[in-house]
Amino acid sequence: MAAPIDFYFDFSSPYGYLAAQKIDALAAKHGRTVNWRPVLLGAIFKETGTAPLTAIPLKGEYSKRDFARSARFHGLGEFRMPPRFPIPTQAAARIVLWLKEQDRARAVRVAKAMFHAYFVDDIDISNPDAAAAIAAREGVDPAAARAAVDDPVVKDALKREVEKALARGVFGSPFVIVDDEPFWGLDRFDQIDRWLASGGF
Amino acid sequence: MAAPIDFYFDFSSPYGYLAAQKIDALAAKHGRTVNWRPVLLGAIFKETGTAPLTAIPLKGEYSKRDFARSARFHGLGEFRMPPRFPIPTQAAARIVLWLKEQDRARAVRVAKAMFHAYFVDDIDISNPDAAAAIAAREGVDPAAARAAVDDPVVKDALKREVEKALARGVFGSPFVIVDDEPFWGLDRFDQIDRWLASGGF
Repeated sequence: MAAPIDFYFDFSSPYGYLAAQKIDALAAKHGRTVNWRPVLLGAIFKETGTAPLTAIPLKGEYSKRDFARSARFHGLGEFRMPPRFPIPTQAAARIVLWLKEQDRARAVRVAKAMFHAYFVDDIDISNPDAAAAIAAREGVDPAAARAAVDDPVVKDALKREVEKALARGVFGSPFVIVDDEPFWGLDRFDQIDRWLASGGF
Repeated sequence: MAAPIDFYFDFSSPYGYLAAQKIDALAAKHGRTVNWRPVLLGAIFKETGTAPLTAIPLKGEYSKRDFARSARFHGLGEFRMPPRFPIPTQAAARIVLWLKEQDRARAVRVAKAMFHAYFVDDIDISNPDAAAAIAAREGVDPAAARAAVDDPVVKDALKREVEKALARGVFGSPFVIVDDEPFWGLDRFDQIDRWLASGGF
């Protein structure tokens, strides 16, 4: 069986949120599974010397318009910018990483719930208690999830995930790696589709 | 008749080069024409505080791979990075802007020839004599084209084009504006296609 495709994302990334709604179906269409890998764009942007899209003159205004338009274009419904943006995403990322060790399917459901909470329900998932409460909706023990946020082992695991991502060239969100071929952005999903169908082009 | 769609580009932009091969057909499919508008990314990046893609850590390496892959994906053949990149594009932009006043169809042919010279034939079109020689291939008087590069009226016209572009929110290349709706990047051509077909979504 072919290896899973790697789906890197940050929970505060609008295009990451949109991509999260499409990646599993795209992979499944080609008989592939997805490894959901939360990372921290803040740490990554420090390495690349770049800034969040919305903080860049002109590009910022355009991006907000494009988030919503891209959501409509891809049939993903209305998109609203969260009032607080961007946010630190350590809490959500650590909970999902911790869960992956126990139950990968549940970790993916929790990841989707985190995105939905932040981008649809206006819940500030940078708050560890709020993030743990989202995990609880998917049957996770909230006290254990809350403890994972401060667990040095989990913290270290996320740090290593980010370092590994940087070492593989990940500089944005969403970022997909298919058999060592890197694809940045929701707007490369058409190329990923053809790549998976043809084995490369 | 509907207004032309605005196609902003810089002659040193790889995605601009790829987009230049598709924009006329995309517009024509929907009964629209294209206003080819060369701008200067150097001046624009000063306003936005951004850097050329290829100068950004990680993103730079990825971009070079993606230029070539996107060329193949869109059926535009092999793509090679010019040995000197990026280059100042004032000479080519001024010649095309000057030509537009006389013969818009020829200006577009010269614009395509400039892109081809730089990205396929390894000709350094930042050199005014080289740029004038490219224009001559399309029947333009090379001495007149060469003179346009240093003509204060043409220089000023290009400066105003860049200022107008910035005022409309143009921050990259290619950048297309369809009836006031802005689209950045070759990877928005699918959205432009639907926008032109449906009048917006």
